[in-house]
Amino acid sequence: MAVFTSVIPIEANEWLKRYSIGSLTDLVGIATGIENTNYFLTTTQGRFVLTIFEKLTAIELPFYLNLMSHLARHAIPCPAPVADNENQFLGTLKGKPAAIVSRLSGVTVMAPDLSHCERVGATLANMHLAGRSFREHLDHPRGARWRSETAPKVMSFLDAARQTLLRDEIAYQARIDFTLLPQGAIHADLFRDNVLFDGARLGGVIDFYFAGVDAWLFDVAVTINDWCVHPDGYFDAIHANGFLAAYAAIRPFTDAERSVWPTMLRAAALRFWLSRLYDFYLPRPGELIHAHDPEHFRRILDLRIALQDQGPTL
Amino acid sequence: MAVFTSVIPIEANEWLKRYSIGSLTDLVGIATGIENTNYFLTTTQGRFVLTIFEKLTAIELPFYLNLMSHLARHAIPCPAPVADNENQFLGTLKGKPAAIVSRLSGVTVMAPDLSHCERVGATLANMHLAGRSFREHLDHPRGARWRSETAPKVMSFLDAARQTLLRDEIAYQARIDFTLLPQGAIHADLFRDNVLFDGARLGGVIDFYFAGVDAWLFDVAVTINDWCVHPDGYFDAIHANGFLAAYAAIRPFTDAERSVWPTMLRAAALRFWLSRLYDFYLPRPGELIHAHDPEHFRRILDLRIALQDQGPTL
Repeated sequence: MAVFTSVIPIEANEWLKRYSIGSLTDLVGIATGIENTNYFLTTTQGRFVLTIFEKLTAIELPFYLNLMSHLARHAIPCPAPVADNENQFLGTLKGKPAAIVSRLSGVTVMAPDLSHCERVGATLANMHLAGRSFREHLDHPRGARWRSETAPKVMSFLDAARQTLLRDEIAYQARIDFTLLPQGAIHADLFRDNVLFDGARLGGVIDFYFAGVDAWLFDVAVTINDWCVHPDGYFDAIHANGFLAAYAAIRPFTDAERSVWPTMLRAAALRFWLSRLYDFYLPRPGELIHAHDPEHFRRILDLRIALQDQGPTL
Repeated sequence: MAVFTSVIPIEANEWLKRYSIGSLTDLVGIATGIENTNYFLTTTQGRFVLTIFEKLTAIELPFYLNLMSHLARHAIPCPAPVADNENQFLGTLKGKPAAIVSRLSGVTVMAPDLSHCERVGATLANMHLAGRSFREHLDHPRGARWRSETAPKVMSFLDAARQTLLRDEIAYQARIDFTLLPQGAIHADLFRDNVLFDGARLGGVIDFYFAGVDAWLFDVAVTINDWCVHPDGYFDAIHANGFLAAYAAIRPFTDAERSVWPTMLRAAALRFWLSRLYDFYLPRPGELIHAHDPEHFRRILDLRIALQDQGPTL
């Protein structure tokens, strides 16, 4: 139920007059995603996705759309925002911010093999390098400050053991300054459901709406914590090492990154434990059905702490 | 024999380190084209074309590359230049300007049907509209001035009848001021061999290296003179009317354009008669084998003059 705002074909066709992409031939609502309304929009000229932004504002959206456009200009496989005839990416549809982006080919791979993990590692490194020349700034919306501010909001819902884990981890992370690490635009949510594969080819990275500027290594940690783990949260060592080697072949890690890597894996687990706790205990109206089980990332955080010296190394 | 500058895989792979598009998996020279050296370049990340510019200079190239990038940003199906990690489209390879662009899918259609002509008309109109917000300027290199300057250079090679035709047409065209018509970036060479079709879908418009700013209607005339004619130069009325209707549905013609339309069809024929005469009689070294028969466009010019009131109308 991702179609929060309904658009009918006659409205979409009228909206298309602002663009140079032909007239509507098909319009299908997309039933995944929890932040935006998305439609597959097909025209006489090509295949696109129409997105109506339900929560993001004109403050954040230019960063996201310009970042995707910048990366597409570097041939990073990602949705390319389509400019209208006024040369703008962002318009207003049904009273809300809206944009059209290119539609990528491929399907998500929920049980990746080594070669999928290597392709994701290489693409993430290329995305980081291509983003170096992107000059706009948006603080990573789920960065260190957000984590510190969110923990107290969910604390009262937790049992004693989980309260201790959360309190200790927030305190531990607060002692470490990630701003000294290589920084740049990061995707920050590169889970398996945000990557499309077209056979062996990585067809696209999607959903940049948690992106921001933060340590590149945080992106690496978020990604490996989803792509290279068994369902119980333990690392798949072969997949993890393949992922990291493919990344490092394109963008070698620094000594500073090596020294904080175990801590970063914990920070990435903490970030998703926290957001899942928040969405679970403090859902916005109508959102409950989308909540993921927070326990998965609590287990990963526990494991990253307990097995800190046994994980994959950079 | 379009590979004027040879590139071997090890050189291409080294060159690719400037980009975020992965490493080389395949490199194949392209045996068409007369102005540039082109290679199909495949990487772990995608399919591209590497172009080494043999004649165009750093004066003209930014206009062409930025125009293609602008149109791609508007989802016009055309090659998208790929920015390197310094965010530049243009580099130097083997001592010459070089760029990488996206590779489009599809094949040329030399015997188009009505629907092909309609797709080309619609895409040309969309390209013109999308180009309105492109702010860079390059005079159309085969515009009115070039035609006036080139005619004397080929005059002595022609027989008396052709000399009279050429002299009269130059004089006739000189009386008409096309700068009063709607202007913008035009492709200026949208022949059948510069459009790729992927089945019924128009996969791409290629080869923007004669583009410039001129009357949109000149682009319409150039295109219809190639796409919608029988081999003898007479219009295919059904194809021509379909092409024009598809264009006008997106970008309606103005009264000023309607009044000069027959003259514009002659100007477009003249432009290609002249360039083919020039290439035929004054070839650059090694280029003779590419010369097209100039007579085809002499016949078209004759027909456009003789049947001025019987052609397709706007």
